[in-house]
Amino acid sequence: MPTNADCIFCKIVAGKIPCLKILQDAHGLAFLDIGPIAQGHALLIPAGHYVTLDEMPAEEAAALLKHLPALGRAVQQATGAEGFNVLQNNGSAAHQLVQHVHFHIIPRRTGDAFHFNWPAGKYTPGQGEALAERIRQGLV
Amino acid sequence: MPTNADCIFCKIVAGKIPCLKILQDAHGLAFLDIGPIAQGHALLIPAGHYVTLDEMPAEEAAALLKHLPALGRAVQQATGAEGFNVLQNNGSAAHQLVQHVHFHIIPRRTGDAFHFNWPAGKYTPGQGEALAERIRQGLV
Repeated sequence: MPTNADCIFCKIVAGKIPCLKILQDAHGLAFLDIGPIAQGHALLIPAGHYVTLDEMPAEEAAALLKHLPALGRAVQQATGAEGFNVLQNNGSAAHQLVQHVHFHIIPRRTGDAFHFNWPAGKYTPGQGEALAERIRQGLV
Repeated sequence: MPTNADCIFCKIVAGKIPCLKILQDAHGLAFLDIGPIAQGHALLIPAGHYVTLDEMPAEEAAALLKHLPALGRAVQQATGAEGFNVLQNNGSAAHQLVQHVHFHIIPRRTGDAFHFNWPAGKYTPGQGEALAERIRQGLV
């Protein structure tokens, strides 16, 4: 599994830097974000060093992300939140700050401090079909 | 696998409502969001009807989410985006609008129309440790 000696999250996985640990297995680690945007804001990270999600082997993603349902449930119950977001950022344009894949689990309450907009657009006729075809070709 | 005859996403999974399909297997479906917040904004949804992520069996989550790396890569390549976000909303407080689990894959460019804030806080001494312990207890 790839590691990076300079990566803070690799150091946390290896136990060289402490964390507020929630769970750990051979494929990943969950712990509390030390700069929480809500109380109970947790991170789920792969044990291997992958900068962005698109670098992860499918089977490593599966082995890591099987924990998301129980983790979301436990975070919501422990905090008494009304709901939660899962957010994962790839690249600086997407607000990625640490260069090791991490899934944020963010407890939510109506009127809390975390906000995002939703600037929904639409496709012109044929535009969506052509784009879906290009994406499908990228999967093969 | 649970289904809901009134759910628009269950109808899309069953082929009763058309979609701009990207991939489909026994566990899930990916297609373009018809109200894209960026060109190529895709959704990955489980074949089974689960309202929120915490309801999903771990193995169904694994079988669905193994597609995320390739899907993120294909969406980014097809759109020429600089990065992408994965966002999944549980509950109205978390901006969930359709009551069937869906993961948004949102292509991102510097200065684009999608924004979120990051109101990071911190824990008082002992507070994070106590919260991590409560979350761990919720996992067993």
